[in-house]
Amino acid sequence: MAKGLTSRAENYAQWYNELVIKADLAENSAVRGCMVIKPYGYAIWEKIQAELDRMFKETGHENAYFPLFIPKSFFSKEASHVEGFAKECAVVTHYRLKNDENGKGVIVDPDAKLEEELIIRPTSETIIWNTYKNWIQSYRDLPILINQWANVVRWEMRTRLFLRTAEFLWQEGHTAHATQAEAIEETLKMVNVYATFAEKFMAMPVHIGAKSESERFAGALETYSIEALMQDGKALQAGTSHFLGQNFAKAFDVKFASKEENKLEYVWATSWGVSTRLIGGLIMAHSDDKGLVLPPKLAPYQVVIVPIYKGEQELQRISEKVNEITQKLRNIGVTVKYDNRDSQKPGWKFAEYELKGVPVRIAIGPRDLENGTAEVARRDELTKEVVSMEGIETYVKNLLDTIQENIFKKALKYREEHTTKVQNYDEFKDILENKGGFVLAHWDGTPETEERIKNETKATIRNIPAYLPEEDGVDMITGKPSKRRVLFAKAY
Amino acid sequence: MAKGLTSRAENYAQWYNELVIKADLAENSAVRGCMVIKPYGYAIWEKIQAELDRMFKETGHENAYFPLFIPKSFFSKEASHVEGFAKECAVVTHYRLKNDENGKGVIVDPDAKLEEELIIRPTSETIIWNTYKNWIQSYRDLPILINQWANVVRWEMRTRLFLRTAEFLWQEGHTAHATQAEAIEETLKMVNVYATFAEKFMAMPVHIGAKSESERFAGALETYSIEALMQDGKALQAGTSHFLGQNFAKAFDVKFASKEENKLEYVWATSWGVSTRLIGGLIMAHSDDKGLVLPPKLAPYQVVIVPIYKGEQELQRISEKVNEITQKLRNIGVTVKYDNRDSQKPGWKFAEYELKGVPVRIAIGPRDLENGTAEVARRDELTKEVVSMEGIETYVKNLLDTIQENIFKKALKYREEHTTKVQNYDEFKDILENKGGFVLAHWDGTPETEERIKNETKATIRNIPAYLPEEDGVDMITGKPSKRRVLFAKAY
Repeated sequence: MAKGLTSRAENYAQWYNELVIKADLAENSAVRGCMVIKPYGYAIWEKIQAELDRMFKETGHENAYFPLFIPKSFFSKEASHVEGFAKECAVVTHYRLKNDENGKGVIVDPDAKLEEELIIRPTSETIIWNTYKNWIQSYRDLPILINQWANVVRWEMRTRLFLRTAEFLWQEGHTAHATQAEAIEETLKMVNVYATFAEKFMAMPVHIGAKSESERFAGALETYSIEALMQDGKALQAGTSHFLGQNFAKAFDVKFASKEENKLEYVWATSWGVSTRLIGGLIMAHSDDKGLVLPPKLAPYQVVIVPIYKGEQELQRISEKVNEITQKLRNIGVTVKYDNRDSQKPGWKFAEYELKGVPVRIAIGPRDLENGTAEVARRDELTKEVVSMEGIETYVKNLLDTIQENIFKKALKYREEHTTKVQNYDEFKDILENKGGFVLAHWDGTPETEERIKNETKATIRNIPAYLPEEDGVDMITGKPSKRRVLFAKAY
Repeated sequence: MAKGLTSRAENYAQWYNELVIKADLAENSAVRGCMVIKPYGYAIWEKIQAELDRMFKETGHENAYFPLFIPKSFFSKEASHVEGFAKECAVVTHYRLKNDENGKGVIVDPDAKLEEELIIRPTSETIIWNTYKNWIQSYRDLPILINQWANVVRWEMRTRLFLRTAEFLWQEGHTAHATQAEAIEETLKMVNVYATFAEKFMAMPVHIGAKSESERFAGALETYSIEALMQDGKALQAGTSHFLGQNFAKAFDVKFASKEENKLEYVWATSWGVSTRLIGGLIMAHSDDKGLVLPPKLAPYQVVIVPIYKGEQELQRISEKVNEITQKLRNIGVTVKYDNRDSQKPGWKFAEYELKGVPVRIAIGPRDLENGTAEVARRDELTKEVVSMEGIETYVKNLLDTIQENIFKKALKYREEHTTKVQNYDEFKDILENKGGFVLAHWDGTPETEERIKNETKATIRNIPAYLPEEDGVDMITGKPSKRRVLFAKAY
């Protein structure tokens, strides 16, 4: 255990909280429920952003920016949306402070009350569809394929760093289409982009599927999610993509003149988003009792080099060699940090970079210089090997690929071992209690049964995976017929 | 004049507003004072961000993220800061809405009143220094070199797209240092980074200098700015860098154990920022009566290709050639858009891309195919030339460099022609009224004189350029002695 890090077995929740703090990823701020994302954590977010942004642009999307504030009345326009979101919002009521006449610092100026209160966006469908109304007249204006990188606020009562915070960073795509088919295609395309990102970059296997009706986004006709499994056997919803039908177009009166019949039709909509919550998933999917384990594709730096030396002269000889290696690694796109600080011993540094999850560590001492070798350690397996300096850059490059793959395989193996098909409710409850993970069970499709299961076991339907074959069965509680199994789990 | 764009001579302010709208850069939103940044405008912001972010990282800075909200009491801790910022803030007082019992939509839930109001950050010194307090114990923790990309809100009464909006996007650097000298060096380094960016990327010449005391950032001991000249003869403050001394360290009690004497000392601070206001400057510095003129280094796409054709077959032959050229251009890092829409005529497209300021337009028709040529038009000079397709990528690449340089030179020439040294107050007023631009005049260094000049002429001291040689003179109003001229102008 690194620097007194609680082990996962001992207390998983505490292990997570300590790890986020000790690895310098984030911390709680002076404002209840809001976090400070520290440079090392933010560097991971920048990597996530860069890759997703590239994927969004490759699929034809552009970025734009809409206001932080939403007039209160906008929320009332889409009936189910207001139910889902208006409850937990930060509300701006005044626009000025003034000095207290009694000398007690600053107070809110009662004369500066807004006529209509402004809500800090919890999500931007309403303000965006109010804007799209002016952008869309004819089929020629469609599709609109826009994404926004932004902060949003949801007044959560129980918060946890990255996983659930009052303010968080995210991206929200908002697209407008001429046909239902095109909007559905977009919804599916984007949930698949998320799945590809999760698996190829985060090394985190996910289940793609539709949400049950009661778990849909407020205002959506269909919500698709990607669901990942954490090491404590709980699921994490890592991204969602919503087919919004014509709900927001109707709420904000957005119509277009169609090509064929030149009549006015309501526009079809989608929205989709992932947030800084992904960082929480990344941590919980791979890390161990020594600290973070980061997939090379998202690590702020992929390689750290630590010199083992006595005296300034030895350090200088090692540093010369390190500069050579660093240059070669950078030339082939590998990011490297050289830690030649004299204030810390190598052993301390080793523990520090294990804690921070740097995928590959290279140590070079005077004997290595003689032998033309270096010690290369991999974070995922905590193994090390002495390799020749000659061609070390190729060795490391390949090792990074191996690590990326290995992390994914481990997570996949864990998921496979923790996905259980059950035949009846007793088995269902037993698995949830004693093994955890995903449970595949038959469900009669009613919100009542879903609700009962949730109340009795805390497990929810994560989604209804499309890849699962149809299979005749009966609901494990009501005995009513079921056409396919659905994916249950306790979840974050 | 493009699409009924008002000319600059006719009404500069109206020309600006129309141009922002017609070129699809931004528009006013449903929320007073807040803008929607449209994809074309946001793409310019992304280019600006990418370059600045690279420059910040090259100078040793890392990104992080701090909360949107600041507890009200934080503002009272730094006396001059609260004077400068607390007046025009969005204030969050409640955290929940509920359904109105009388069925009138949603209302603010009076039971959900915050104990302490939260201010939407107008700038983040207070919340950040409250955080730094926990990060800094010893000299080993210094320097802290952090930047944040974020939205901020200042409740402006009179707003203009990009130039002055209630919400805007910006970056704010916040650094902490062990010594005064180091903090001053950082302050100067960053204002120079801004100047380099303005001149090399925005092609916008700027004056670097210190602000007069009355124009300093609230809480700073010294503020440096870059000041650019717009085509209507008014100055635009395009970026600022502040030496904050120990003011925020004292306000938030941030001390460190120094290396030499191991005693506790207050930390030295800087902050520095530029915002989406830069886009306003970019527009006003270069654009003309036909529309935007964008410097190639910040243009969302540098080249647009328009086919001139009759019939599907001709289009296909042209498109094949265009694909070849496009590939060659992309290979050498040039961004290209091919507009083969059949819904618009070439003439319409030409006007559209002039309006949008695309630096280079290539038109290819059937005769060009026969002759192995293409027509290349440059936006800055509105000239065109027929060039050989052979090696056209090199021609275009060089042309983009030429345009970048030419735009800068034009702006520099305009500034030189509109910078006037005056000897007395009559001359000063005459220049401001009849010629505009920067005026270099002697000033006695008192806020009283500065205030009087501002009231009588609307001109302010933009800054005190460091590069100006010392020169004995007398204040043009009071006749008191002066050691150097300072830079006056009417300003945005």
